[in-house]
Amino acid sequence: MESAKRRLCAAFEFFTKLGVKYYTFHDRDMAPEGSTLKESNMNLDEITDLALQLQKQTGVKVLWVTCNLFAHPRYMNGAATNPDCHVLAYAGAQLKKGLDIAKKLGAENFVFWGGREGFLSMHNTDVSAELKHMANFFKMAVKYKEKIGLKCQFLIEPKPKEPCRHQYDYDAMSVIGFLKHFGLENHFKLNIEPNHTTLAGHSYEHDVVMASVFGMLGSVDANTGSPDLGWDTDQFPMDIRNTTMVMKTVIEQGGLQPGGLNFDAKVRRESTDLEDLFIAHIGAMDTFARGLRNAVRIIEDGIITDKLKERYSSFSHGLGQKVEDGSATLEDMEDYIQQNGEPNVTSGKQEKYESIFNHYI
Amino acid sequence: MESAKRRLCAAFEFFTKLGVKYYTFHDRDMAPEGSTLKESNMNLDEITDLALQLQKQTGVKVLWVTCNLFAHPRYMNGAATNPDCHVLAYAGAQLKKGLDIAKKLGAENFVFWGGREGFLSMHNTDVSAELKHMANFFKMAVKYKEKIGLKCQFLIEPKPKEPCRHQYDYDAMSVIGFLKHFGLENHFKLNIEPNHTTLAGHSYEHDVVMASVFGMLGSVDANTGSPDLGWDTDQFPMDIRNTTMVMKTVIEQGGLQPGGLNFDAKVRRESTDLEDLFIAHIGAMDTFARGLRNAVRIIEDGIITDKLKERYSSFSHGLGQKVEDGSATLEDMEDYIQQNGEPNVTSGKQEKYESIFNHYI
Amino acid sequence: MESAKRRLCAAFEFFTKLGVKYYTFHDRDMAPEGSTLKESNMNLDEITDLALQLQKQTGVKVLWVTCNLFAHPRYMNGAATNPDCHVLAYAGAQLKKGLDIAKKLGAENFVFWGGREGFLSMHNTDVSAELKHMANFFKMAVKYKEKIGLKCQFLIEPKPKEPCRHQYDYDAMSVIGFLKHFGLENHFKLNIEPNHTTLAGHSYEHDVVMASVFGMLGSVDANTGSPDLGWDTDQFPMDIRNTTMVMKTVIEQGGLQPGGLNFDAKVRRESTDLEDLFIAHIGAMDTFARGLRNAVRIIEDGIITDKLKERYSSFSHGLGQKVEDGSATLEDMEDYIQQNGEPNVTSGKQEKYESIFNHYI
Amino acid sequence: MESAKRRLCAAFEFFTKLGVKYYTFHDRDMAPEGSTLKESNMNLDEITDLALQLQKQTGVKVLWVTCNLFAHPRYMNGAATNPDCHVLAYAGAQLKKGLDIAKKLGAENFVFWGGREGFLSMHNTDVSAELKHMANFFKMAVKYKEKIGLKCQFLIEPKPKEPCRHQYDYDAMSVIGFLKHFGLENHFKLNIEPNHTTLAGHSYEHDVVMASVFGMLGSVDANTGSPDLGWDTDQFPMDIRNTTMVMKTVIEQGGLQPGGLNFDAKVRRESTDLEDLFIAHIGAMDTFARGLRNAVRIIEDGIITDKLKERYSSFSHGLGQKVEDGSATLEDMEDYIQQNGEPNVTSGKQEKYESIFNHYI
Repeated sequence: MESAKRRLCAAFEFFTKLGVKYYTFHDRDMAPEGSTLKESNMNLDEITDLALQLQKQTGVKVLWVTCNLFAHPRYMNGAATNPDCHVLAYAGAQLKKGLDIAKKLGAENFVFWGGREGFLSMHNTDVSAELKHMANFFKMAVKYKEKIGLKCQFLIEPKPKEPCRHQYDYDAMSVIGFLKHFGLENHFKLNIEPNHTTLAGHSYEHDVVMASVFGMLGSVDANTGSPDLGWDTDQFPMDIRNTTMVMKTVIEQGGLQPGGLNFDAKVRRESTDLEDLFIAHIGAMDTFARGLRNAVRIIEDGIITDKLKERYSSFSHGLGQKVEDGSATLEDMEDYIQQNGEPNVTSGKQEKYESIFNHYI
Repeated sequence: MESAKRRLCAAFEFFTKLGVKYYTFHDRDMAPEGSTLKESNMNLDEITDLALQLQKQTGVKVLWVTCNLFAHPRYMNGAATNPDCHVLAYAGAQLKKGLDIAKKLGAENFVFWGGREGFLSMHNTDVSAELKHMANFFKMAVKYKEKIGLKCQFLIEPKPKEPCRHQYDYDAMSVIGFLKHFGLENHFKLNIEPNHTTLAGHSYEHDVVMASVFGMLGSVDANTGSPDLGWDTDQFPMDIRNTTMVMKTVIEQGGLQPGGLNFDAKVRRESTDLEDLFIAHIGAMDTFARGLRNAVRIIEDGIITDKLKERYSSFSHGLGQKVEDGSATLEDMEDYIQQNGEPNVTSGKQEKYESIFNHYI
Repeated sequence: MESAKRRLCAAFEFFTKLGVKYYTFHDRDMAPEGSTLKESNMNLDEITDLALQLQKQTGVKVLWVTCNLFAHPRYMNGAATNPDCHVLAYAGAQLKKGLDIAKKLGAENFVFWGGREGFLSMHNTDVSAELKHMANFFKMAVKYKEKIGLKCQFLIEPKPKEPCRHQYDYDAMSVIGFLKHFGLENHFKLNIEPNHTTLAGHSYEHDVVMASVFGMLGSVDANTGSPDLGWDTDQFPMDIRNTTMVMKTVIEQGGLQPGGLNFDAKVRRESTDLEDLFIAHIGAMDTFARGLRNAVRIIEDGIITDKLKERYSSFSHGLGQKVEDGSATLEDMEDYIQQNGEPNVTSGKQEKYESIFNHYI
Repeated sequence: MESAKRRLCAAFEFFTKLGVKYYTFHDRDMAPEGSTLKESNMNLDEITDLALQLQKQTGVKVLWVTCNLFAHPRYMNGAATNPDCHVLAYAGAQLKKGLDIAKKLGAENFVFWGGREGFLSMHNTDVSAELKHMANFFKMAVKYKEKIGLKCQFLIEPKPKEPCRHQYDYDAMSVIGFLKHFGLENHFKLNIEPNHTTLAGHSYEHDVVMASVFGMLGSVDANTGSPDLGWDTDQFPMDIRNTTMVMKTVIEQGGLQPGGLNFDAKVRRESTDLEDLFIAHIGAMDTFARGLRNAVRIIEDGIITDKLKERYSSFSHGLGQKVEDGSATLEDMEDYIQQNGEPNVTSGKQEKYESIFNHYI
């Protein structure tokens, strides 16, 4: 506990030196697991008293809290999806405390990352039962959140695999499908970590865009991976093209509030100097700052936006408008083609878009 | 047209010699595209008259029809998601005829594969608009289907990429999310092609299982790919392990009717002998037949099923039952842990399941 | 043939308008395949007369020639590695003419890309025999080159797969291993296409660097792919980070002569305007020009180079020097540790290097 | 040390119960690292005395020893390729003792796995220097081996990545290229771990076959991975198709002596019962036993072999024979085509080979 307190003080010193206004944490990283749930909860109470005090002193606030429902051996076959209800109960009890802590510290979001919610082998797994249990687990969380008057946004963070062979929250669309199937879509948004996105076979910005399009982008866990590697490296993002794409999406949807950008990246194991922690955070924040500036200039100049508007302009009138408002029929389509025949070929002009985009990098 | 008719007769000769009871086709493979929509439709009318006659003579029926809305250059920027509504109209007109043909030939299913519904570059794409157009396109199809009294099942076939860099129907969960978002889930099921599943980063049987779990497995397009290749090779399935897993899922959900198993696999370009076409179909059917027999034996023996039932047995009583029926709360969970403490660790026994499974291969 | 001539004239008009000084070609793209080898050769003679004339008029020279030994159906089971020696003979005859043409047009390099040298299935392949045939095929090429006094550099272009499931020239190291095994390493260098490199699981610049390190980097076929796609998209390179890395390596090895940079990229199928061809080439050349400028500034500033020199400085004296010159022994090592004990941990400082690199982008 | 001794005794009990005749080990798994090299060496001396005694009692022998030059933090930037020669010296000193131990215990092979020989970032890496140091490190090993009269076979185990972003021993061909470049090819063979092969983008059996073809297959580390995962899962092999392919190659090259098959697979973290360790080993050995039986039947029946011999029969006479013996020229090729014209198309018959192969599974 003493070590946990020293670490927390050091963390706030670090936040202050970096000048960041928010921090995030896992319950078990904040306070060590005790030998019983009660002891773990007492540890959390004690440490979060200190955290609250440090928050007040520094003005640093909690972007999100999450419960670590994956590292302890009890969760190795799943937390909410464990075949043994006793484990699910443990996860629920831990979550209850996590929500209490979120309220105590004024967390603006609460994240669920289901690293053990999935399977290593289909042979020993009842997928249908596990999905139902996961949904009911989320419903209990919603009910308790409402009961205690916790105002924060619930977020699910997709990841396709690792540690499991397959995780149910594979990517943005998988989670959206799951939420809608179980009637949970109004209670959750997504916390997108782009190196999880690339592990699912998409481009870096893909899930940020897809979540935004479906009105579900809540926050961005802004780590990066290496596209030539098949595991999660949690690196600090250093690619300006990527950060430009992400920030452009964020601006276009009017910001992320109450979400934000956070790193849960790690310096490389080989980066052993104390200064490396600063260099990594500053380098990555600079990369996002450059991305933000680029995105602002792209949007303010309006060249790409205008080209795009023009590209889809046929949907603003006539048959296009009927397609937009859902009143068109296949018979309308056939009539239109009988009168107008073959459409002209229109160039997609990808290279032109790419060249214009490069002017902003 | 003469060549198309000869090909159709040869196809029915082939079906008969193989002893298969169903066939599937793309509209533009059945009858060549004309210089106008009207001419294309007349070609289809003429060829499908012959098809109907051959169906009657041989008893071979149509498992599914689909419209080829991806190969003609007009569709290169999308069909239902084309930025130009004129192209969307062409796709709609073609689809209307496709549905008429499906009715005429008594097709038991109608497949939508959106090879061009996606994008090559995010820079020139309005994802939000395109998804809405695609949804409205499907709604028109549903409306017209109901109008003409077409009884078949609508199916969407997911594929993550190729020819596009990204396709909206990425995998089973993406399509389920899309359908539920747009209120289309009662009108569609999925046609799963496992080599598309592996391209999306999942195991061969993954989307068959997921679609089944969500009540959405309609049919199986039973090609295979090579896990070390990143494009769609459309090979004939020859791996008995894979076919066993698929057939086990099919049996467990009580069959696929009105769907089925079909190959739209191709013999390798290098397999140039006439007999290769027979060898490939027979070899792959044998592989599925062995898979079916294995699955039946696994299910009849019940060893794996019983172990699985035992594994999840804690959900049949007490707190587990409350989790199942949705009445449990986080407070119940905490109470349970306060009384019962830490759960025991239970082995997942993956290697045992795998070894038992191997006895059936 | 008339169409081929018109295309050639248009090509030279294009080269001149772009201001490029070199071009590259496949024999069968330059002149159409005839119905016999003799006719194909006559076609080549006639078209290359025109090419020679256009080269003289414009000053545009040939960077490299290559024989297309993969597209004609006769090569579908391989050219130099075909199981039928008759096909290998055809490839040899075509190659002989290709070398003659290279001499006639003053080509500075001659490229071998073995798209069909590999296999689709191990079951029907004698890998050992095929590799030997490929080596002997290359030896015949070397012998004929020397006989006719052709001065150009021979280059092999690695590609891991596609169209084959596996190609023997998988990546830079595979080709280097093959060449050294068969005693061919003094007659060949490598033509690296970075989107082939990424298909082999490496980073974009990896094979450029590895080939350079082994003294085998001859030329760069500067296309790009998409890291989230598993096939060869042959896109125009638009990523400034990538081109900076490549140009840095090129400068560090003292240039590429007689090799160079070329695109055999294609505009996207959807880029259908005439101007797209110009935009794509200009955009990609600009991307390499920015990469070159960045690389020059990195090298001239010397910050990264100096840090790197410092990092390896222990090899410039004492035991390190003995390791360098190969005179150290394991006994020396043990003595050193007995005297000096445990080494200090030294930070790899990856994030610092990345942040400095970003200053140049 | 007491715990290490108990583990060793338990290991021999396990070997005996399984009935295996060989074991393998890492130096630091056998005996714990001490606070100095001297202490580590003393630990090794003491434990290997016990090992020698247990070997004599049980008749179990050492298939291979290896030095763990990757887990200790001192090696995090490389062992033989560390930028700091002090670390390289430590690795050399540890290796010297490892070779002594190999001699003491009569190890039949000695394995080098270079998990840290590669890089995380090209920015901070001098690839050329590191490769030279690695080669010189291997040369010291060869010299010391000869000096002490150690008779075992040296083996390098390729792995493409993990823990490094890129490892120099990427795959079989990379290692072969490296060995030949530095004149080391007569002193080393390869220890192929097929789940490393699949991580490098090849099929399971690929590197076993390639190493065998180049006369470099020394031993097989018979773990498996999951083709849909991008990291090393070290699972027990349970796929009969894969083991059939591997054993067929082993038989065709006349066995692996002095190499063998070993597992350094791990039961899943979730397989927590004591019996799981037995079940996993037995299940995987059975899988290889079935693979061996299948391979024997394939070879004894000779159907596939005969078809293959026929497929390449054109190389046994005439021009084919000249290609084989290296005396053919491009002029011979041209003459042959002028006389014989276009070759016939020959079917690759992949599906037939696959169907025949399936009869043996």
